[in-house]
Amino acid sequence: MDSTYADARRVMERCDILSRYSEEPDRLTRRFATPALREAQDAVAGWMRDAGMDAVHRDNVGNLSGRYEARAAGARTLLLGSHLDTVRDAGKYDGPLGVLVALALVERLRARRERLPFAIDVVAFADEESLRYHTCYLGSASVAGAFNARDLALVDDDGVAMAAAIRAFGGDPAAIATDARRSDELLGYCEVHIEQGPVLERLGRPVGVVSAIMGQSRVTIDFVGQAGHAGTVPMDARHDALCAASEFVLAVERVGRATEGLVATVGQVAVQPGASNVIPGAARLSLDVRHGDDERRAEACRLLRRQAIDLGRERGVAVHWQAAQESPTTSCDAALTQTLTTAIASRGYDVTSLPSGAGHDAVALSDLTPAAMLFVRCKDGVSHNPAESVSTDDVAVAIAVMDDFLTLLTRS
Amino acid sequence: MDSTYADARRVMERCDILSRYSEEPDRLTRRFATPALREAQDAVAGWMRDAGMDAVHRDNVGNLSGRYEARAAGARTLLLGSHLDTVRDAGKYDGPLGVLVALALVERLRARRERLPFAIDVVAFADEESLRYHTCYLGSASVAGAFNARDLALVDDDGVAMAAAIRAFGGDPAAIATDARRSDELLGYCEVHIEQGPVLERLGRPVGVVSAIMGQSRVTIDFVGQAGHAGTVPMDARHDALCAASEFVLAVERVGRATEGLVATVGQVAVQPGASNVIPGAARLSLDVRHGDDERRAEACRLLRRQAIDLGRERGVAVHWQAAQESPTTSCDAALTQTLTTAIASRGYDVTSLPSGAGHDAVALSDLTPAAMLFVRCKDGVSHNPAESVSTDDVAVAIAVMDDFLTLLTRS
Repeated sequence: MDSTYADARRVMERCDILSRYSEEPDRLTRRFATPALREAQDAVAGWMRDAGMDAVHRDNVGNLSGRYEARAAGARTLLLGSHLDTVRDAGKYDGPLGVLVALALVERLRARRERLPFAIDVVAFADEESLRYHTCYLGSASVAGAFNARDLALVDDDGVAMAAAIRAFGGDPAAIATDARRSDELLGYCEVHIEQGPVLERLGRPVGVVSAIMGQSRVTIDFVGQAGHAGTVPMDARHDALCAASEFVLAVERVGRATEGLVATVGQVAVQPGASNVIPGAARLSLDVRHGDDERRAEACRLLRRQAIDLGRERGVAVHWQAAQESPTTSCDAALTQTLTTAIASRGYDVTSLPSGAGHDAVALSDLTPAAMLFVRCKDGVSHNPAESVSTDDVAVAIAVMDDFLTLLTRS
Repeated sequence: MDSTYADARRVMERCDILSRYSEEPDRLTRRFATPALREAQDAVAGWMRDAGMDAVHRDNVGNLSGRYEARAAGARTLLLGSHLDTVRDAGKYDGPLGVLVALALVERLRARRERLPFAIDVVAFADEESLRYHTCYLGSASVAGAFNARDLALVDDDGVAMAAAIRAFGGDPAAIATDARRSDELLGYCEVHIEQGPVLERLGRPVGVVSAIMGQSRVTIDFVGQAGHAGTVPMDARHDALCAASEFVLAVERVGRATEGLVATVGQVAVQPGASNVIPGAARLSLDVRHGDDERRAEACRLLRRQAIDLGRERGVAVHWQAAQESPTTSCDAALTQTLTTAIASRGYDVTSLPSGAGHDAVALSDLTPAAMLFVRCKDGVSHNPAESVSTDDVAVAIAVMDDFLTLLTRS
C-alpha cells in the first residue's frame, strides 16, 4: 500500500499545481479554450510524456489525450479520464482528480512494465462545466460524435464566438466531427470523480459506485415589470420585477425542500436597469432542477412554472419561461459498474451505489460506449467552491480500486 | 400665451434632441464626464451662445453654465437650472427640462431686451444621478464648496478613476475647490423639474411647489452563505445567499407598504459566483429608503436591519450592513417658495405644496444659498424610464410661472 499512497500524494500535488492555472488572480476559474486551460493542459501533457505515454494529442475541440498502447495491435481502447475546465471560483478536484488518477494508473502500469490486452486513452476533456458558452459536455460530446456545429456561432460574455475561441486554441472548428470515436474500437469509459455531495461521508466510506446521473432541467425565466423612480413611485403603484423574482426564488426553495430527492437552484440573477435608485423593471433568473426520476423532475418544473405565472399575474409582472436545456437521467453501464463493485468489495470496503446529482462527461459518452463512474468521498459534501477537499487516503483507495478494476477487465 | 407655448415647444424639441446623446445605442444613458454628456453640453452651450448669453463656461468638475448679466455691475446672481446626466435607460425630461426652461427664460428676457437687477446663471450640473461613481450631487456639491477630494480616487465599473475622468473631460481635479460660489454673491437657486410621481396628476394640476426634499438612506447589504454544487448539495444542507437576499427583498417591500409615506427599494443585486449550476455563496443588494420624516426613515432602517440579521441567522447566512449614504430631509427656502406660490396663484392655479421623494441638486445648494423648486406634472408618475412624459401645455405653464417669479423677485 506504500507505493499507492505515494501515487495518491503525487496526484494531490498535481491537483495543487493545476489549481494555479486560472483566469483570475485570486481564485480558480478556468473556462473552455482559455490560456489558463492551455497552461493546465501543457502541464498534464508534460506529465503524460514523462510517464512514457505512446502519444499525446490535442483534438480539434481542444480535448487533451495520452495513449498507452495495448499488448498487441488491433485491441480495443478503454477511455479513462475527466475534465480540466472549472466553474468560477472552483475547487481543485472537480475534474482534475479523475484525469490525474487515470494518469497515475498508467504510471503504475509503466512501472510494472505491464501492457494490457486493451489500450488506455487518458482523456482530459476541454469543457464539462459549460461556463463559457453554456453548452453542455462540449469536449465529451465531440468524442461521442454529438458536437453541434451550430454551437460554433455562440458568443461568450466578451463577444468571442466559439469558432474563434477554438481556432485561437489551435483547433479547426470544421474538423471537429472527424475526431469522433467509433463505438466498435472502444471498450468503455470509466471516470473517477469527487462525489460533490455528503452521502459517502455520512456513511463513512472512501469510495462508491454511481448508479445513474440525474436528469436535469435548465430554464431561463424573465420577469418584466415596470422601472420607475425609487423615491417617487408609491409602493402601491409599483410593478417591481425583482420582488416578483424574489418570490419565485423562495418558491423554488420550497418546492425543492418539499420533494424527496429533488434539488432546485437559482444560481444567476440579473436586474435591469440595475441602479440603486431605480425600481427594477426586469429580472432574469436561471433555474436548475434535478431528480433521479425524470417524471418527478418534469412535475416540479410544471409546478414552478405555474407558480411563476401566478405570482407574476398578481403583481402585474409578465413572466417568460424558456426551457434552456433538458437532459434525461442516464443509467451507468451495468457490467462495468459490477466490475467496479467487485473491485471495491475485494479491497474489503462496503459498496455504496448512489445517483449523481451532478452531470458528468459520462452522460455524453454513454451514447457512444459503456460508461461507469467511481465516486471519491469529499469533505462536507462541498464542491464548486474553493473549500472542496478530499483526503490523500481516499485517493489512494480510488487508485487501488481502479488498478484492480483494470486487472479484472483484463480477465473478462 | 402664444409665444409662451412656442417657447415650451422649443424646450420639448430640445429635450428630444438631447435624448439622442447617449452612451448606449438603443436607450438613453448619460453618465458623468462621458463623451455623451459632452455632446449634450455642447448642444446646450450652442443654444446658450445663440441666446446671446454673456458668457458660457465649463467649470473643473464639468458643470456647464451660461451667464446673463444684471442691469448694473455688482449685483447678486440667481442660479437657475438642473442637471444633464441621466440614469440608465432614462427618460428625456429628468434634468434637461429644468436646464432648458431656465435657458428659455433668458431667451425671453433677451427678446424683451430686458435686464434684471440681478444676474442669472443658467447651470447644467454634471452629475446628479450618481450612476458612474455612486457619489451624490457631484456637480452641485462642487458649486456649494462641498466637493470631497477623496472621491477623486473612486473608480467606475471600467476601472477609470474619477480624477482621470475629470481630466479627460477637460477639468483640473486639483482646482475644483476654486470653483465654489460665495454665498454673499448669490440671490438663491430655483429649479424646475418633473414631479416623477403621481400627485399633481391625481390632483389635476400642471405645476406645484416643493415643500422639502425627503431624507434618504442608502445601504449596501451583503449576504454571505456557502457556495456549492447545485446538483449535489441536498436542500436541507444549503446556506443559499440568494434565498436569504430574496427574503430580504420581500421584507423591504412589506415594510415599505406598511409605513405611510415611506418608499423602500432594492434596485441592485449581484450574486457570486453567479453560475446556473452553483448555489449562490454571496449576494449583494442595494437598499434605498426615503421618508419626509427623518425619524420614521431611521426607524424603518433599524427594523429592516434587524429583519436581515434575523433571517440570515435562521439560514446560517452572515449579513453585513453598510450604510452607504445618509441625507436628512431638506426644507426648501420659505421666502423663495412663497414667491413661487404667489406666481402660481396669480396665474389662476390652485397651489399644491408637496415633498419630493427624489433627491435634487437643491439639496446640495441649500447649504450655500436659499433654494426652491417648481414641479411639473408628468404622465402616470413615471420617471427613470423611457416612458417619462410631460405635456407641452404644462411646460408652458412652468415657463409662465417662472417668468412671473423673476418679475416678483425684481420687485422684492
